[in-house]
Amino acid sequence: MALIVQKYGGTSVGSVDRIKNVARRAIKWAEAGNQVVVVVSAMAGETNRLIALAREIQPEPDPRELDVVAATGEQVTIGLLAMALKSLGHDARSYTGFQVGVHTDSAFTKARIESIDEQRIRADLDGGRIVVVAGFQGLDAQGNITTLGRGGSDTSGVALAAALGADECQIYTDVDGVYTTDPRVVPEAAKLPSITFEEMLEMASLGSKVLQIRSVEFAGKYRVRLRVLSSLTPWDLPLEQERNSGTLITFEEDQTMERAVVSGIAFARDEAKITVVGVPDRPGIAYQILSAVGQANIEVDMIVQNQSVDGFTDFSFTVGRNDYARTLAILKSEVQGHIGAKDVIGDPKACKVSIVGVGMRSHAGVASTMFRTLSEEGINIQMISTSEIKVSVLIDEKYLELAVRALHRAFDLDAQPAA
Amino acid sequence: MALIVQKYGGTSVGSVDRIKNVARRAIKWAEAGNQVVVVVSAMAGETNRLIALAREIQPEPDPRELDVVAATGEQVTIGLLAMALKSLGHDARSYTGFQVGVHTDSAFTKARIESIDEQRIRADLDGGRIVVVAGFQGLDAQGNITTLGRGGSDTSGVALAAALGADECQIYTDVDGVYTTDPRVVPEAAKLPSITFEEMLEMASLGSKVLQIRSVEFAGKYRVRLRVLSSLTPWDLPLEQERNSGTLITFEEDQTMERAVVSGIAFARDEAKITVVGVPDRPGIAYQILSAVGQANIEVDMIVQNQSVDGFTDFSFTVGRNDYARTLAILKSEVQGHIGAKDVIGDPKACKVSIVGVGMRSHAGVASTMFRTLSEEGINIQMISTSEIKVSVLIDEKYLELAVRALHRAFDLDAQPAA
Repeated sequence: MALIVQKYGGTSVGSVDRIKNVARRAIKWAEAGNQVVVVVSAMAGETNRLIALAREIQPEPDPRELDVVAATGEQVTIGLLAMALKSLGHDARSYTGFQVGVHTDSAFTKARIESIDEQRIRADLDGGRIVVVAGFQGLDAQGNITTLGRGGSDTSGVALAAALGADECQIYTDVDGVYTTDPRVVPEAAKLPSITFEEMLEMASLGSKVLQIRSVEFAGKYRVRLRVLSSLTPWDLPLEQERNSGTLITFEEDQTMERAVVSGIAFARDEAKITVVGVPDRPGIAYQILSAVGQANIEVDMIVQNQSVDGFTDFSFTVGRNDYARTLAILKSEVQGHIGAKDVIGDPKACKVSIVGVGMRSHAGVASTMFRTLSEEGINIQMISTSEIKVSVLIDEKYLELAVRALHRAFDLDAQPAA
Repeated sequence: MALIVQKYGGTSVGSVDRIKNVARRAIKWAEAGNQVVVVVSAMAGETNRLIALAREIQPEPDPRELDVVAATGEQVTIGLLAMALKSLGHDARSYTGFQVGVHTDSAFTKARIESIDEQRIRADLDGGRIVVVAGFQGLDAQGNITTLGRGGSDTSGVALAAALGADECQIYTDVDGVYTTDPRVVPEAAKLPSITFEEMLEMASLGSKVLQIRSVEFAGKYRVRLRVLSSLTPWDLPLEQERNSGTLITFEEDQTMERAVVSGIAFARDEAKITVVGVPDRPGIAYQILSAVGQANIEVDMIVQNQSVDGFTDFSFTVGRNDYARTLAILKSEVQGHIGAKDVIGDPKACKVSIVGVGMRSHAGVASTMFRTLSEEGINIQMISTSEIKVSVLIDEKYLELAVRALHRAFDLDAQPAA
């Protein structure tokens, strides 16, 4: 008998009919002999409605009280889903975060899970019940209600799977798995039957929105077997077919011998590039530049510093486009004179394209294939940044689609399984 | 320094603007040197919305899960009110039923409060905070979420006042106090500056909707000083004026020496009368008749049995009009033949009018004044039932307004304080 944690997002529970379908699907897994825990989000639109209400009262809502209000969204869903399960004849019980002891730190609106008391859930499972748990929420050491931030229900699902030692954590979303790249940009994008955790982490952090990155990190840390599935398939799809329809996130690289060198192409729009020109090359310069930016709560993504020539170097980094003007102003007024740089320049219209794949480790020439492909398309590379399993380039945003399509073809991803 | 518990109902917190006014009012009391705990209901309409959603899933919602869903209404209000208080510069903190340990039994949708852990609230009060608590909800010994049933927030307020030993529990509603009778029926109805607990209990159980009857019983049991006030007065009304604008529910009868003999006229519409005719007068008959009705979950109100003549008696009682046809059918099919009664007859168009007053105890002739007044108006009395401090009569529903107005005049209630 396997223990499965299923997580359904806001769209999947967005209406009474969809909640009933979630109930039917969960019962299908339970009646096949599995113990089933279901973690749910608030009904689509509900969290936004609650936050808007809070903002009417207080434009910058008090974080503790905002969590009190926001946590009600998931609480409504768990009650409704438990009713749906019961009305279909399967015993069920719902629990809020506090009822199953989802302990978090006290960082309201973005809390992190520290532990979960799983005894109560286990007792219900042993009693033949389907257990429904509210995602996104917990309580801190003082008993205050906390929420995990947007997308936090993924993390709740993975954390519960870890606490229960579940055989699998199934994340049901409105996409049906992880693709080689965004199918809206490349119609030939293929679904990956599996992807490694490291690849998934890079894909997630590079802008692939399928899974919340914290949930992937959590799954990696506690070695939770994670599967992304579509909640849009018919609920009565045979079990094996449903299982194979998604993407499994694995710990082993060797699942297929003929693994592609590059697994996918990720991209992030709305990047902006800043360059501090003619920086005297001495220790502490990078810190001085980035600490001024960090103090303004601006998040920095790619960072590149070249070898210095004649004691001067250029220091470049990217920020979100919304932060461009502010970043430029801070550097010009607070940093440029202080560190003796010649100028601060930038380009607010950049985007980042990355190739990701654990196969890169053992295959030379992957980066150069990338650079050649882009050059053949006449695309100029503005910045390059690499890790063990990915190569990212910053390019003019007008070339985004062209670059992604060309790379998808160049790395033979178009030809992937027509499963 | 006084400790005050204020309770605001759904209409009083029915919009963002009204929530802000509740915050201003609570701050006014706090800044006058009081410790203030505020208990709130769900925003008007919210509980109905949640129950309707539940019924879409399951026509007879599972009671445990219905409570999980319904309890979110109050949770939203407490968060919003705490934000409003903070945005006005007063420190505040919200608590759900589980966070302040409102322990109840496990009777989902109509649970009863057993105890409250008041330490946490006290610590906040000592820290200068206004404490906001969700009404209507608690948790049972197994940690399940429970609700107290409709109007349960009144009971939450009184229970908190009892647990904290509050100096006063102020129930803010959309009426401004307790009247001698319903002002919609008698425009000359006067507001009572005070009323005794026993009178309030009779008035509440007889259909005066100002306070939920359980909350009055609770206040009586724990001797909580209760005051009904209007949330529709300007929030910046001077404190003493606000205090005097409502009705105080007292334990002492002697607060005014010149107390009226009758304090108020209560009435209940939509009653129906049933009479089992020609019942052999032997022990157990009343039980046999009423147990059949009770087993069908039909609530019986007035019960009258006359002295028997020639070994036979008539047994009459009233039920809500909605239950009339069903009651008649049950008695005819299951009871009449069994007990050897001659007939079962009834009248679905009755109403009940009652005079209430602790002064009756020491004043003879109150009932006869009532009967004479009704007779002068040509109103026939169908049934009479009395307690120590009230006399109720059942009459044809078409005479309701006439009877109430005539009695209001006859007992000099029109002339009461034009305060």
